[in-house]
Order: sequence, then C-alpha cells, then structure tokens
Amino acid sequence: MTKTTIGIFGGGQLGRMMAQAALPLNIQCIFFEASLDCPSAALGKIISAKSDDALNKFIESADVFSLEFENTPLTDVDILTQKKNLYPPRQALAIAQNRLLEKALFDELNIPVAAYRAVDSLLSLEQAVNDLDLPIVLKTATGGYDGKGQFVLHEKNQIEQAWAELGPAKSLIAESFVKFSREVSIIAVRGQDGEIRTWDLAENHHHHGILSHSIIPAPNSQALQPVAEDYVTRLLNHLNYVGVLTLELFVTEQGLYANEMAPRVHNSGHWSIEGAICSQFENHIRAVAGLPLGSTETLKPTVMVNIIGQHPNCAEVLALTGAHLHLYNKTERCGRKLGHITLMPNQQEQLSDLCRKLAVILPNPLALTSDMCID
Amino acid sequence: MTKTTIGIFGGGQLGRMMAQAALPLNIQCIFFEASLDCPSAALGKIISAKSDDALNKFIESADVFSLEFENTPLTDVDILTQKKNLYPPRQALAIAQNRLLEKALFDELNIPVAAYRAVDSLLSLEQAVNDLDLPIVLKTATGGYDGKGQFVLHEKNQIEQAWAELGPAKSLIAESFVKFSREVSIIAVRGQDGEIRTWDLAENHHHHGILSHSIIPAPNSQALQPVAEDYVTRLLNHLNYVGVLTLELFVTEQGLYANEMAPRVHNSGHWSIEGAICSQFENHIRAVAGLPLGSTETLKPTVMVNIIGQHPNCAEVLALTGAHLHLYNKTERCGRKLGHITLMPNQQEQLSDLCRKLAVILPNPLALTSDMCID
Repeated sequence: MTKTTIGIFGGGQLGRMMAQAALPLNIQCIFFEASLDCPSAALGKIISAKSDDALNKFIESADVFSLEFENTPLTDVDILTQKKNLYPPRQALAIAQNRLLEKALFDELNIPVAAYRAVDSLLSLEQAVNDLDLPIVLKTATGGYDGKGQFVLHEKNQIEQAWAELGPAKSLIAESFVKFSREVSIIAVRGQDGEIRTWDLAENHHHHGILSHSIIPAPNSQALQPVAEDYVTRLLNHLNYVGVLTLELFVTEQGLYANEMAPRVHNSGHWSIEGAICSQFENHIRAVAGLPLGSTETLKPTVMVNIIGQHPNCAEVLALTGAHLHLYNKTERCGRKLGHITLMPNQQEQLSDLCRKLAVILPNPLALTSDMCID
Repeated sequence: MTKTTIGIFGGGQLGRMMAQAALPLNIQCIFFEASLDCPSAALGKIISAKSDDALNKFIESADVFSLEFENTPLTDVDILTQKKNLYPPRQALAIAQNRLLEKALFDELNIPVAAYRAVDSLLSLEQAVNDLDLPIVLKTATGGYDGKGQFVLHEKNQIEQAWAELGPAKSLIAESFVKFSREVSIIAVRGQDGEIRTWDLAENHHHHGILSHSIIPAPNSQALQPVAEDYVTRLLNHLNYVGVLTLELFVTEQGLYANEMAPRVHNSGHWSIEGAICSQFENHIRAVAGLPLGSTETLKPTVMVNIIGQHPNCAEVLALTGAHLHLYNKTERCGRKLGHITLMPNQQEQLSDLCRKLAVILPNPLALTSDMCID
C-alpha cells in the first residue's frame, strides 16, 4: 500500500505527538526544524532548517504539509505552496501571526472580542487611550509571546514610555482588558471535505502566564459549548480550513469573548489522547492526509497537567489511578514544558483528590492545589 | 532524567506497539531481529540477529530485557541472564515452549486441561490411544504453530502413519479434544513488586486457524471472569512472573479449560490500546521497567478485528464510527497479519452493525458476518 509522508514545520512535542498518532495509520512524518535533537526526532527524519537548500529538500521529501509551529515564516510557506499543499491554509497562518488581522476577522465573523485599536503612531496611541478605558494592554501586532512585546498602561502618563518601548515595532494593537471569570478553549477539526468535529470545552488554568492544567469537560459549560462551537465553525468555514484549529475564549458576564486562535493542535487538547475516542493529533493527521475524521466524543472527565521546568518522579506519577505520563525528551529548564500528565480516574469525584495528590508529587506544583475547582 | 532502554527479542508488530507505549514514558526500545525492515524498525534501533557478535551487542545495548517472540532461543536467554534481567523470566519461556511442561504446570496448579499423554515411542502412542477417547491430536512438544507439527487421529489404524510423520520429533504429546462452545483469553500483568492486574476476558474467533476478531468484554462472561483471573494469577505467582501473560481458555459445560499460555502481549489484547485505561503494551513496559501498573479497566465494549493478507481501503475503515486503524507496515501475503482495527462505538448496540459494515469493507472478511455474535 502507498505510504503518505507529511512534512511538518517545527519539531517540538506537538510534532512528536502528531507523528505518534500518524504511525499506526502508516503515515510517516518528516520535520523541518533547526535542532536535530528535538522532541520529534524519535519519530521521523529531521531536515535541519539550518542546512543548505533545506527548504527545497523538505518540500521534495513529503507529499503534503502541515505545521506545529505557528510562527512558521510566511516566506517559506509561499515557496512551499507553489508546489505542494499546506494544511492549515496560508491565510489562517497569516491571520494568526498578526493580532490586528486576527481581531478584524473576529469582528467580521461577529465573534465578540475586547475593544481594541490599531496603533502606529504616538498620536494613534493617545487616541486609543482616550477611546478605551484604562488599563489597556499595548502589544506588537506580530511576534511576542508569553508576555513579551507587551506593555500594560494603567495611567495616561505612561503613554510616552509605552511608545518608547514598543513604538519601533511600528504595528501595534491596544486592547481593553476583559473582565472574565475563567478561560476556556474550543478545539475543532475540519476535514478536506468540509466536515467539522469539535471536542468538549477545556477550562484552562495558567501559572505565571503558562498553561498549568486543563479540565475537560469545562465545568458548568453546557450553555457555553454550542456558542463556542458556533464561533469556531465560523472561523473554520470562512478560512476553508483543514486540520485542527484552537480558539481561546474568555468567560465573561456578557458571554464568551475570543482571546486568540492557534492554527494548530494545542496544549489544552493533549487530554484527548486518552480522554476522547479520537485525539486532536490523530484527527489533525487524518484531515491533512485527506482521511475521514474520527469521533471527538469525551470518554471520561479528564485533567491534563503540564510538567514544567523539572521532571517529577515518574513512578510516583504512574502510581496515581488512571494517570498517563507523556514526556517530551527535553532537558530541564525554568518555565519549559517537559511533558504532561493525563488524569482519568474511574469516578468523577476522584478527580480533585487525584489532583491534590499530583500537586504533592510535582516538583513545580503550578498552583494545582490553590485554584483546583473541578467539582 | 535517566532514560531506560529495554532490549526486546523480536521486532514484529508486538514490539512496534510496545515501543509506541514506551515512547511517552521516555523509555527507548531496541530490537534483536533478523530483518532490518521489520515493523518495529520505525521506533527503535534493530540489532540484526544475523550479524557477528550480535547477541553481545544487544546485551550491551539495553538496561533490561523482554521479548515479543515466544520462541526466543533459550540458549540466547541463558547468555543474557548471566549479565542482565529478562522479564518474563526464563522459566516461563521454557515452559511455554514445551507443551508437555506447560500441561504439567497446569496440572500442578489445578488448572483444568484436556486429558493428555506424553508420547516418545510407538508403544506409548498406542497406550495413549487406548487411554484417551478418539479422536486425539498428536503434536510435537516443541515448535510447530498454526496447525503445523500436528496429526489428528480419528481411528486406530492411523497410529503407524501418525508415528511415521511425527515420531522423528521424539517428544510428542497426545491430547484429547475438548468440547467447547467458544474460546476466551485472559490477559494479566504482574509488576516487579508482585502486583497483578487483569483485563476483561476477550472472546476470540478464528478463521482458518488464525485469530480473526475478539470481542471485549466476552459476552456472558461475568461468572467466567473470576475463574480465569484465579487461574492466571496462580500461573503468575508460581512463575514469579513480571510482564504480561496471556492464558487461552476453552469455555466448556464443565467450566474453563486451559488451552495454552503465551508469555507475552497477545493479539487478543490489542483492543486495550483504546478500549482500556492502560493497554497491555503500556503495562508490559511499566512492569519490565519496574514502574507501577496502570488501570486495566475497560472504557467501552470493543471489537478488535485483524487485517489479514490484504490491506483494506483505509478511508473506508476510518469512516466507521469509533474505528481505530493500526497498520504494521508489512507487505501483503496470504494469511499474514498486516494490522488490526478497533471498533469502539458510542452505544453497545452499534457494535454488531459496525462489524457488519466492516465485513463489507475488509478484502478478507474473516467470517465476520457469519459468526458475529455480539449482542
């Protein structure tokens, strides 16, 4: 039988888990990545993005292409798409890489977002501060992550300082803050035939700006689920999207507000490897390969906990009932995602108890004990 | 963190699926196998069993050892165990490789088996025919599989022909036939600390002597489950076993009769990848690596169907609700196991319906339609 090869931009843990899902389907993954020792290397050839003529080698080496790195350069994508197909489409990537384009798309599709203004001069920043209630956050339209490339303006007298710091980036966005009670994410997949499937909403908890854990299904989310599905469906169809798309949302008193979208599999969907009939990784691979999508039904309530900075004692983790451990073969470094743990106990009521036990085991407990609100 | 390497005798699909389960635990597998192009090759280094000094290289290359090939030569095992640990233990392997030792162990542990006699001469064959009711099956004590090395004696006048065919093997076993309604298997795992977990009984259906499909949990097996668990537990503890052990059983009017044991993960346990919280592969790896065992609870009723001889249309298979496809990267050959399909629908009643649909799709339908008795 013919074997499909999928070329993937990036070679981190998302690529690793995509390739794990691809293997039983006899689909081979190959990765375009600077580091030959990346997490995906255990499962497929790495074409070093640093080597001569690397991009052309990569393009020749696979049948169809995808990505796990949302900052994949559009210049590379443009060379690729002259010859081969990329899923998700270039347009989705271009929009996700630019906060102004992203907000404009949410507006166009009537997906609520926090009030914002484009800022490209000191004058337009002053105007934005007048239009929006303080505090506001000023961000570069492109680049920046985990709080980098951002400035929070609490008072008008910070305008000049903010402009001095971020003005050189030229294209900025000023956003109001949204009063939200919690953050959720909806993950969806669209096939080449336009079929769409969505997983249950995840409730996401962060610690120092990094996802610490997700609870699935998000508690008390029955009324939110269809709204979130509607929003992500609008995005998928508008973009003629193929593959997995993630939409992060704020839960507010006025309903769901879009935070941002990620044109890829997402950390808040890792639970689906064990917790859903078909995982985000398998369905992404199926979509990219042009295969029918699998059921996204939740098998059991699940908590996914990130392993950040330091590895736990594996034996202690695996001794927890229904615990699954996923390590990414990465070296320890402060703030680095090294793996994740999926907790899937027999009874829902065991979930909080298990999380408390896990918090004791984790070297970096990620506030698991304090904001654990599962019941 | 330190990375454990497990050396595995054999490199077929069982090794492939072991390595898939090992990867997220940051456990590397390495295989001792003649063919460099074997199904396990996608997931770990193959040390060619044909190369010079291969066994020593293999022994040096891993921390602890296991097997996926139950006919692993005991001579190799003896060299290995002078330096490193093998799980399951040598004794279990030696017994499973010899039908007479295996029956004697079942007898010793009061696990019912069909009446049998050891045969090592024409005289002892005549005596066996007198002792046991005809028909009987004469088998070589070692070697032989899928009906090879066997002779079915229906009448006394076949004694000389049977002896002429099998006598040269010197050590034979004559077995009565057991009147059974169906075959089931119990799969269990024992950790290095002696902890034992068992999966639900599988009901196994064969076609031309090859497993075609398994239904889990075996229908109407509530009374059988504890008996089967008791039998396999006796074996595990007696052998001081570590890893996964499979016991095939006949369901008779007199209760369960042991057919044979396999000192390894088993085709009738492939369903557990999706159908149980922790699969036979992950628990085998956990046991061999000295880690705590995972929950063996069944998540959903499941049917596992083998893909034999010819590949199906993958898209047609994946379009079935709750279908998972596992291909082994093998070329097509009559009677060869090329992969398996796990069906895990939302409702139990959909299972028969799904199987009927699958039977239409499979190029080699394996009598799926005729003996499908799931309800």
